[in-house]
Amino acid sequence: MTRTGWDVKQSETAKHTSNPIRAIVDQLKIVPCPGKDLISVSIGDPTVFGNLPTHDSVVDAVIDAVKSSKANGYTHSTGYEHAREAVAERYSHPDAPLTSKDVIIASGCSGALDLAITALANPGQNILIPRPGFSLYQTLADSKGIKVRHYNLLPEKNWEIDLEHLQSLVDDQTAAIVVNNPSNPCGSNYSRAHLLDILQLAEKNFLPIISDEIYADMVFSGQVFEPMAPLTKTVPILACGGIAKQFLVPGWRVGWLMIHDRNNTFKEIREGLLKLTTLILGANTIVQDALPTMLHKTPRGFLTATLATIEEHAKLSYEMLGKIDGLVPIMPQGTMYFMVGIQIEKFKDIANDMDFVQKLVTEQSVFALPASCFAYPNFFRIVITVPKDKLKIAYERLAEFCAQHRK
Amino acid sequence: MTRTGWDVKQSETAKHTSNPIRAIVDQLKIVPCPGKDLISVSIGDPTVFGNLPTHDSVVDAVIDAVKSSKANGYTHSTGYEHAREAVAERYSHPDAPLTSKDVIIASGCSGALDLAITALANPGQNILIPRPGFSLYQTLADSKGIKVRHYNLLPEKNWEIDLEHLQSLVDDQTAAIVVNNPSNPCGSNYSRAHLLDILQLAEKNFLPIISDEIYADMVFSGQVFEPMAPLTKTVPILACGGIAKQFLVPGWRVGWLMIHDRNNTFKEIREGLLKLTTLILGANTIVQDALPTMLHKTPRGFLTATLATIEEHAKLSYEMLGKIDGLVPIMPQGTMYFMVGIQIEKFKDIANDMDFVQKLVTEQSVFALPASCFAYPNFFRIVITVPKDKLKIAYERLAEFCAQHRK
Ligand SMILES: Cc1ncc(COP(=O)(O)O)c(C=O)c1O
Ligand SMILES: Cc1ncc(COP(=O)(O)O)c(C=O)c1O
Repeated sequence: MTRTGWDVKQSETAKHTSNPIRAIVDQLKIVPCPGKDLISVSIGDPTVFGNLPTHDSVVDAVIDAVKSSKANGYTHSTGYEHAREAVAERYSHPDAPLTSKDVIIASGCSGALDLAITALANPGQNILIPRPGFSLYQTLADSKGIKVRHYNLLPEKNWEIDLEHLQSLVDDQTAAIVVNNPSNPCGSNYSRAHLLDILQLAEKNFLPIISDEIYADMVFSGQVFEPMAPLTKTVPILACGGIAKQFLVPGWRVGWLMIHDRNNTFKEIREGLLKLTTLILGANTIVQDALPTMLHKTPRGFLTATLATIEEHAKLSYEMLGKIDGLVPIMPQGTMYFMVGIQIEKFKDIANDMDFVQKLVTEQSVFALPASCFAYPNFFRIVITVPKDKLKIAYERLAEFCAQHRK
Repeated sequence: MTRTGWDVKQSETAKHTSNPIRAIVDQLKIVPCPGKDLISVSIGDPTVFGNLPTHDSVVDAVIDAVKSSKANGYTHSTGYEHAREAVAERYSHPDAPLTSKDVIIASGCSGALDLAITALANPGQNILIPRPGFSLYQTLADSKGIKVRHYNLLPEKNWEIDLEHLQSLVDDQTAAIVVNNPSNPCGSNYSRAHLLDILQLAEKNFLPIISDEIYADMVFSGQVFEPMAPLTKTVPILACGGIAKQFLVPGWRVGWLMIHDRNNTFKEIREGLLKLTTLILGANTIVQDALPTMLHKTPRGFLTATLATIEEHAKLSYEMLGKIDGLVPIMPQGTMYFMVGIQIEKFKDIANDMDFVQKLVTEQSVFALPASCFAYPNFFRIVITVPKDKLKIAYERLAEFCAQHRK
C-alpha cells in the first residue's frame, strides 16, 4: 500500500528538536514600553552593540586567506591540517599533550558538541548535564532521542556541582557527563580541587566527560582557568572549544573538539568521530586558514582588554544590583554572563522569572533572559558585554521596577 | 547497576555513518608509479589545481564583509535576512515564487540535504536515491537509520531515470524521492519532458521531492537548465543549492534549502526545518553577508567562462577517450564530471572498476574515482576541471594502459 493523499508529516527527529530559549521566549509578550528605548541584555552575542570588535590582526588574517585563493577548496572532513595543528599547539599541555590528530575542526563549538554527544550516546541512553546550563545540550540530545538528566549546581558554592546529586543520577544507561567550565549562564570558574572531585566521580563510574570549554581563559583578575584534561591520567575527555567568544566572532562558526585519551579508551570513539565528520564536511575554510594566526599571533593584550571591560561591567552590575531589595546578584568569575536571583516572596505581583522579565520589558523596556531557559526558574541572566552606559540605565530601571512591585 | 570498567563504545549512529567514497578509496592501494608524477582526476573540487579561481568581485565582497565588523555576530538560525532574500530573488520564478521566508541558509548544500532528509524521513522509512548518485544521500540516511533504495539511471538515455524501476521501489514507508539534476557523477541535464514525468510519478504516489540542484545553471552550450519547482503546482519540493560549484568555493560551506510548497502541504515540514536549524546555528556569517553581492553582482561572464573551459575539457575527454578500445565515454551536458564505462570483457586482467583504477594508478600514476563509489561498478568518474594539459597526459597514459591490458 502506498500513500493515498498529500499528508506529509515532519519526522520524529524534527518533532523532538526544540530550542528551550526560543520556546520560552516565544511564550513571552515582548512589547517594550513606548516611551523608553529597549535595552536588551538577553543575547549571548558580544557583537550586537559594536563596542567589542575583534582584533585587527584577526581581520587581516581572514583577508589574507581570501586573497590568497588557497583556502577555497574542500578540506579533510576534520579540517585543515595547519588549523588542527594550531589548535593542538595552543591547547597542548605537558600533562595532556595534543597533536593535530587529536583535533577536529567543527562548525562552531556547537558542532563540536554535536559530534561529541552523537559519538558517545545512543538513543535511550542518558547524559548528565548541568542545571542551570546551556540549553544546546538538551536540544541536541532531544533531537537524537538521547535522554538528559540535570545535575544541580550550587549557587551558594559559586555554582560548584552538587556531586552527591550528580552521583545519584548515574545508572547503567549513562553515557557521559557534560561539564561546562567556565559556565554559561553562571559565569563560574571551577577550582582545581573541584575539577579533581568531578574527575574522581567520573573515574569511579567509568564515565567519559564532555568538557565544554568555550569560555577557556575568559576569567577575571585573580582567577586561573584550569582545563580539565591535564588533571586526569585515566578519564577520557572530549574537550570542546572555539573562536566565538574569545575572538568575539560567533557568526564565523569555527570551533573544535579535542580528544584527550591517554589509554586508548576512546579508540572506537575516535573512529566514530571521524566518520561523523563526513556528514557535513566541516567549517568555513577561510576562517580555518586564519586560525593559526588568530591563535598564535593575536596580542595577548586583546583578550585581557576584553576581559577587563567585562570584569568592570561585572563589578558595576554587582554593586548596582546588590542595592536592589528583592534581587540577589551572584558575582561571576569570568565569561560574559551574570546571574541574578529573584526573591519572589518579596514582590507583591510577580509569579516567577517569566512574569518578572515580561513585566520588566513591558514597563521598563529592559529585556533579560529568564533563567527558565537554563532550567533554573526564579533567576534571570544578564549579558554583561552590553555597553556600560546602557547597563547603568538598565539597572536604574530595574531598581525602579523592583520598588514598584515590592510588597 | 553502573559500569564496572572503561568500556566506551561508539554510538550506533557513529557506527552506521560511513562515506562510501572513503570506504572504497581506503581499500585501494594508491601507490603511484615512481617515474611519473601523479595526476589525480578523482576529487570533485574545482580549486585543487588553481586554474579556476573565484571571481574578484566575490573576494572583494567577502573582504568588505570582514572589514565592516558587521557580520561577526550570530544570525537567526535560518541565516541573515538579506542573504535569504538574495537567494529568494535569485531563484524565484513566476511559476514557483520564493520569499526570504522560504529560504534556509545552511552549512553547504550538504547541510541543506541533511536538513531536508532529516525533516522528511523517520528511521525505518526509506528515501529513493539515484544510482549512480552522489554518495552523501546514503551517508546521511544510514547515519539516521533511514533506509535508501537506489533507482536506476539509464546511461543510454543520457542518464534519465528508469521510471518504471523508480515506481517499483515505492511503498508505504517511502518518505521522499531525491533527484539530482544536473547530476554528479553523470553530468546529465534533464529535459523539461523528463522532469515532468518524474513529477507525475511523485504526484501519483503523493511523494515529496528533494531536488539537489547544486549544479543549477552549470550546463553546456545548447543546454537549458530547468529547475524542478516551476514545473509543478502540487508536488512539494525542497530544492537544495549552494555556492560551492558555481562560485568555485566549496570550502566556504554556504548552501541553501528552498521550500516550494504552494498548497501548504509542507506546513509541518516547514516548522520541523526551522527547529532543526537551531541545532548548529547555521553557516559562516562573512560569506552570508557577501551572498547578495555574489548572487547579484558577479558578472554573468564569470560562470560562462568557467563552463566554456569545462565544456572544452569535456569535448577533449570525449574525443580522446572515444579512441581507446575498451572504454565507453559518455558525453556530459553540464557539471564538471565525466563518466567512462569500462568494457571489462575486453581486458585480460581487469576484474572490475576497483581493479582498473588501482592498476592505473600503480602503473600510470593517474587516479580516477571508481564508480563503485556511486554504487555503479565498472565505470569510473573523471573530474574535468583538471587543467587541459594534465587531462591530455592522463588520457595518453590511459590509452597506453588499456593497450597493455587488452586481450
Ligand atoms: C556553554 C556554551 N557552549 C557552546 C556554545 C556555542 O558556541 P558556538 O557559537 O561556537 O557554537 C555557547 C554559545 O553561547 C555556550 O555558551
Ligand atoms: C550532487 C551534489 N550535491 C551536494 C554536494 C555538496 O555540496 P556542498 O559542498 O555545498 O556541501 C555535492 C558536492 O560535491 C554534490 O556533488
